[in-house]
Amino acid sequence: MSETSARRGGYVDSKDQLRRRLQRIEGQVRGITRMVEEERYCLDVLQQIAAARAALDKVALGLVDDHVKHCVLGAEEQSRDEMTEELMGALERLVAGR
Amino acid sequence: MSETSARRGGYVDSKDQLRRRLQRIEGQVRGITRMVEEERYCLDVLQQIAAARAALDKVALGLVDDHVKHCVLGAEEQSRDEMTEELMGALERLVAGR
Amino acid sequence: MSETSARRGGYVDSKDQLRRRLQRIEGQVRGITRMVEEERYCLDVLQQIAAARAALDKVALGLVDDHVKHCVLGAEEQSRDEMTEELMGALERLVAGR
Amino acid sequence: MSETSARRGGYVDSKDQLRRRLQRIEGQVRGITRMVEEERYCLDVLQQIAAARAALDKVALGLVDDHVKHCVLGAEEQSRDEMTEELMGALERLVAGR
Repeated sequence: MSETSARRGGYVDSKDQLRRRLQRIEGQVRGITRMVEEERYCLDVLQQIAAARAALDKVALGLVDDHVKHCVLGAEEQSRDEMTEELMGALERLVAGR
Repeated sequence: MSETSARRGGYVDSKDQLRRRLQRIEGQVRGITRMVEEERYCLDVLQQIAAARAALDKVALGLVDDHVKHCVLGAEEQSRDEMTEELMGALERLVAGR
Repeated sequence: MSETSARRGGYVDSKDQLRRRLQRIEGQVRGITRMVEEERYCLDVLQQIAAARAALDKVALGLVDDHVKHCVLGAEEQSRDEMTEELMGALERLVAGR
Repeated sequence: MSETSARRGGYVDSKDQLRRRLQRIEGQVRGITRMVEEERYCLDVLQQIAAARAALDKVALGLVDDHVKHCVLGAEEQSRDEMTEELMGALERLVAGR
């Protein structure tokens, strides 16, 4: 992380939209906590968890899109391979959950 | 949802633990929003999203476990099939993202 | 595996259907190999891989359904917890890819 | 598909390796069919399905890697955005199962 933290996020142009989507997900998770406090039926809780997860996936894919367009394609020739490697590591975690 | 909402959650005995885990995930998502505000590198953000998603998966699997143990197995003979059907619908969304 | 291999599969009643679905998936994978031999466009290949994976997911969920209905619910009281534990281990691999 | 089928696969250099991996997966699926014929325990079958799915995921990620390196980065300026769009569509199916 230390190595990459100097780089800017490729999502900067759509930062506000991204922030709003994350705040909505935060609200979704808060709502799920409330459902648990009210001892709601487990499968209703599960359904909301699946919805929050799908929303996170959407944000993740948006970040991948921004990364390819603005970081990988915008980079100097010599850093592209490294950036593609990093991207593949991130995708592995997303696709295969590892 | 209206049909099922009268039922109690099978997780009631571990409600506090479940609530704490959800609050931690809420905090994780808030941390991701902050990373976006600070314009952190996209793949660092992505890594945290993958972590939050994995944490949600863990909560989801805990709920499935509680559901099978306390709802399906604890139910009257005649409601078990219905409960298994509902469970399968929920698993489909989790496994296949649908 | 040795411990569990004496047990019968809960899917026995729908064995033929299951076998046919698996044979169809085998054919899908063979078709993908052929696409690679013909050097087809990578995203077209990827699409077929996603389709084969979705088909495998469907078979997996069918097995979970059979397992809950015929093994867990059909088991003696004392083996149900063990069977639910085993099921959760299998679901973890499916949901979280671990 | 008709529009893209004229393009070559970005994996051409590693075609043989890719073909061997797909043939191994085909063999895995055939082995699963055999397990079903022998009425093996459902969770043992499920475990092999999860393994085949993980192997497909690995092939899929290899194709994404090849696509980014050889197709997107190797393309003319004006086709890169289109190729990235296509890639994102494929990733959506892989990550979110849609």
